[in-house]
Amino acid sequence: MLGSSIQCRHSINRQVWGTVLKPVKVGICGLGTVGSGSVNILLNNAEEITRRVGRSIVVEQVGARRDNPECDLTGINITRDIFDVVNNPEIDIVLELIGGTSIAKELVLTAIENGKHVVTANKALIAEHGNEIFARAEEKGVMVAFEAAVAGGIPIIKSIREGLSANKIEWLAGIINGTGNFIMTEMSEKGRDFSDVLAEAQELGYAEADPTFDVEGIDAAHKLTILASIAFGIPLQFEKTYTEGISQITSEDVSFAHELGYAIKHLGIARRTQNGIELRVHPTLISYKQLLANVNGVMNAVMVKGDAVGPTLTYGAGAGALPTGSSVIADVVDVARTLTADPTNRVPHLAFQEGSLATTTILPVEEIESGFFLNMRIQDRAGVLANITQILSENGISIESVIQRERNGGDLVPLVVMTHTVKEQNMNAAITAIEELPDVAGKIQRIRVEHLA
Amino acid sequence: MLGSSIQCRHSINRQVWGTVLKPVKVGICGLGTVGSGSVNILLNNAEEITRRVGRSIVVEQVGARRDNPECDLTGINITRDIFDVVNNPEIDIVLELIGGTSIAKELVLTAIENGKHVVTANKALIAEHGNEIFARAEEKGVMVAFEAAVAGGIPIIKSIREGLSANKIEWLAGIINGTGNFIMTEMSEKGRDFSDVLAEAQELGYAEADPTFDVEGIDAAHKLTILASIAFGIPLQFEKTYTEGISQITSEDVSFAHELGYAIKHLGIARRTQNGIELRVHPTLISYKQLLANVNGVMNAVMVKGDAVGPTLTYGAGAGALPTGSSVIADVVDVARTLTADPTNRVPHLAFQEGSLATTTILPVEEIESGFFLNMRIQDRAGVLANITQILSENGISIESVIQRERNGGDLVPLVVMTHTVKEQNMNAAITAIEELPDVAGKIQRIRVEHLA
Repeated sequence: MLGSSIQCRHSINRQVWGTVLKPVKVGICGLGTVGSGSVNILLNNAEEITRRVGRSIVVEQVGARRDNPECDLTGINITRDIFDVVNNPEIDIVLELIGGTSIAKELVLTAIENGKHVVTANKALIAEHGNEIFARAEEKGVMVAFEAAVAGGIPIIKSIREGLSANKIEWLAGIINGTGNFIMTEMSEKGRDFSDVLAEAQELGYAEADPTFDVEGIDAAHKLTILASIAFGIPLQFEKTYTEGISQITSEDVSFAHELGYAIKHLGIARRTQNGIELRVHPTLISYKQLLANVNGVMNAVMVKGDAVGPTLTYGAGAGALPTGSSVIADVVDVARTLTADPTNRVPHLAFQEGSLATTTILPVEEIESGFFLNMRIQDRAGVLANITQILSENGISIESVIQRERNGGDLVPLVVMTHTVKEQNMNAAITAIEELPDVAGKIQRIRVEHLA
Repeated sequence: MLGSSIQCRHSINRQVWGTVLKPVKVGICGLGTVGSGSVNILLNNAEEITRRVGRSIVVEQVGARRDNPECDLTGINITRDIFDVVNNPEIDIVLELIGGTSIAKELVLTAIENGKHVVTANKALIAEHGNEIFARAEEKGVMVAFEAAVAGGIPIIKSIREGLSANKIEWLAGIINGTGNFIMTEMSEKGRDFSDVLAEAQELGYAEADPTFDVEGIDAAHKLTILASIAFGIPLQFEKTYTEGISQITSEDVSFAHELGYAIKHLGIARRTQNGIELRVHPTLISYKQLLANVNGVMNAVMVKGDAVGPTLTYGAGAGALPTGSSVIADVVDVARTLTADPTNRVPHLAFQEGSLATTTILPVEEIESGFFLNMRIQDRAGVLANITQILSENGISIESVIQRERNGGDLVPLVVMTHTVKEQNMNAAITAIEELPDVAGKIQRIRVEHLA
């Protein structure tokens, strides 16, 4: 009977795989925020995790330049040379938690050479060197997991790669940098200026002394690159991601947007279109009717639209020792479960089988389609608005809303125009022409508007 | 070198597991909403799915009482006896999509006896018979997956069971019935009465002719039972879930709650406390500041608080052919990947290893702690409010807000009191005493308030 032959195979399998019940041994490289968070979770939740996995996860060795007072390393084998960890024959899984793209890359490749699986939180490493790393890991038959690299504790990688595996993903849009979202939230709720809020963010530890990676969108672009690859099945192409920061957003922009019913968020957007794939990070107006517009402070959220499931949103802590550690250890659990699985049957690194990645074009930003919010200063004279709307019309741009204010001292008045969706190159041409009008002063502030249809 | 021995094992494994690249054969039982959605996804997204899984998923046979015009069954082997499907030796995975708890139970157990894996969308079956089904599946070494049973297309089961596997889950709270949420949304946005909106919901197909399962919270209780088991590692205990429907909520309740800054939603709440586990479905006030309060229409959302990740929220379509089909097929993909995995290394059915399920007490509802919203009619006389607040105080209940309205014809005025958190049995005692006061007319409407701290 089919039933009993399954039983027999089961018993045989238990004998062959008798070793699977041994503890899984992890080596941790890096004891910064994420490293200490990961250690603390493994120690504090050891019982809960073992109840789930059916085997214990042991910290075999930690490599770190210095101890971290945030975690108790009593009894743990510590080395000051992180390469000891990747060369330690006892270790099954290496946690790369040092960050950066030079030593971390060498560390990860060495771990792979040594047949060790890797769990990382390093978005820059995966975004910039993931293609090479995954190719090497495929050849060696080891896993490289990176849930913690995007949106901290939110299991978004798993959600897209596995939970939504039946869908063609149409687009995704995310608030995936907590620093930027903290700043935009403060500007919105309190009417403050960017540089003022940035200073506070730095004091609170939400922004680095050099905040460029965060406020200029590079960190978000790293993460978006990864999300787009697992959603669309394309190689990682960080260098093609259009990246624009939030440092030019004014409190006046925020106030006008609010008046029109929109929040300004620093969004990463990836969209599949007939002509290619959009990959872009930039300040974006989104309607307050969208849940995403109401995600505030340092929290992250990612909306994904699948052709079967429709729109989904996942929200949670995008950074921090414990939230990020939560994703690191979830990955360790996943890897532990698949240690003895046929490598051909594992979830592929980029969600799609090697060899079936698509060569879809990544669109240059001039080709993307978006609504636009324009904030300009004009002379308060007859015919100015007519000239402007004429130029818009000539470029195929239709208007959704206009705010024009009364004069408030001086000659210039603010004029805000929100357009319907149009190709960016048309908007660029219109902006150039409008800026040349004698009655338009200086440069026009241009912020994209996303309707997430 | 370690590297080359991994390579060798890899080649050997490919030879041993050469069969894994064969198509996976599924049998579908039921061609209703979910059945037709699942078929359509498999047909329309065949290429995308194969790109992900590395093997094709073939509909080997469909068992259904009648064809469904919503899907193209050309070339598919159809039988009018669903038991043909579970007895078909060619089939690897059975999709149980007929619903109900009698024939469906027999069908699933037969599939398991025959060594077939099962994917189901049947929340009632899992909630009421899951313990027995999983025990049988464990013995037979087969998988039973049920992502589609809770919150439609949202991969919440996978999220809690795997994405948050490093956490002790503290609580979860969800809008997990689209009918109830549609009704509460309409009552809120348009000031309508319950029975009026219910009638419209039935016309639109959002509610059944007999709407009891939905509006009385039984469907939500099935789903909550499942969520609580995978979150806390307890056996499924549907019969212990406190269930209260929304049919007694008035438009006046909704209006007063709104005035206090709260939405009324039909929530399922599961919380781990020192004294035991709370499992309850009932109308609930939640602050508009919570994202959950802003989830409207037929959409679902589940908030989960883990001790490492903090609060998370997942939102999406909770029902419908394609959203539910999305989760069914995602489960098929998961099962397909683990067909040859060591059964001891698979994700356990209830997220926790068999034998390590906890025997934690499920608290009777009198033991739960909650805030309360009280809506009553009182005589407009001196001392009434003092009597009421005296009774509350005697029962250890402190007041958060009060709304008292002027007389509007007649002797009675509305009085609304919102309390701080208190044990339910204390509130019950206070309500009994207040209702006995001569100046209080009739019964007091009592709705729980949740702060999701």
